Amino acid sequence: MNRWLTEEEQRAWRGLLRMTSQLNARMNRQLLQDYGVSLTDYEVLVVLSEAPEGRLRVFEVADALAWEQSRVSHQLARMQRRGLIAREGCASDARGAFAVLTEAGRAAIERAAPAHVETVRQLVFDGLTQDQLTTLTEVTSRVLDRLAATAG
Amino acid sequence: MNRWLTEEEQRAWRGLLRMTSQLNARMNRQLLQDYGVSLTDYEVLVVLSEAPEGRLRVFEVADALAWEQSRVSHQLARMQRRGLIAREGCASDARGAFAVLTEAGRAAIERAAPAHVETVRQLVFDGLTQDQLTTLTEVTSRVLDRLAATAG
Repeated sequence: MNRWLTEEEQRAWRGLLRMTSQLNARMNRQLLQDYGVSLTDYEVLVVLSEAPEGRLRVFEVADALAWEQSRVSHQLARMQRRGLIAREGCASDARGAFAVLTEAGRAAIERAAPAHVETVRQLVFDGLTQDQLTTLTEVTSRVLDRLAATAG
Repeated sequence: MNRWLTEEEQRAWRGLLRMTSQLNARMNRQLLQDYGVSLTDYEVLVVLSEAPEGRLRVFEVADALAWEQSRVSHQLARMQRRGLIAREGCASDARGAFAVLTEAGRAAIERAAPAHVETVRQLVFDGLTQDQLTTLTEVTSRVLDRLAATAG
């Protein structure tokens, strides 16, 4: 069985890939230039800043971002060296260790967030109608449901 | 001026980020397990396989994928070591060098593509109505237009 995408599906799929890739590149460049944090740093800071006391286990960070464990570990190590987070160990189990937002980490996200959100508004939401916004939410939930249903 | 996202926009935005991140993780895992290529390898192979004679300048690969130049260089070096692509130099200018799909590279994408496309179908397109598909394409073009209009 080999079902290729229709032309229309292919257009939608490539549009989605290009959009995501270009949005990420733009957001990353802006965050780095203006605030000295990468998009990846920013995503980790968001996840921690929303957790109670800015604290999560390493595997919870991985789950929240849908990242591989090794990527999260490397990223957290880099952020720890720069003082954006601290780690509180669980000597027996690296996945069970905690990542904790430091004051510097919280200050970094508070500085960067307003301009970052403004960029997202300008590039994405200011250009969408209410119907398009509703449909975008439907589409993402639909796909996320399918991902969850086939997770293994 | 500080305009935060409405709750609905935030839901759409986080849905989009989660969807993209989880789709990428799933596609990457499947490609690696079943075909020994990463999603990143696959994306480069697609771009080259669609170019005349499987050949593009390095900066064209970067543009097509909206990647930073340094990321493309590292990725191409790894793929060259594995025989998936060859590079034809332009000694004076690394960006102007060519990346060329090898026979092994073409074989790799031909092996991986059917199952990859089937995954995309099952996770994304089989779950969407025609209206949702149309709107998804509209949304991505809209955002891509805004990215192009503000590129610097």
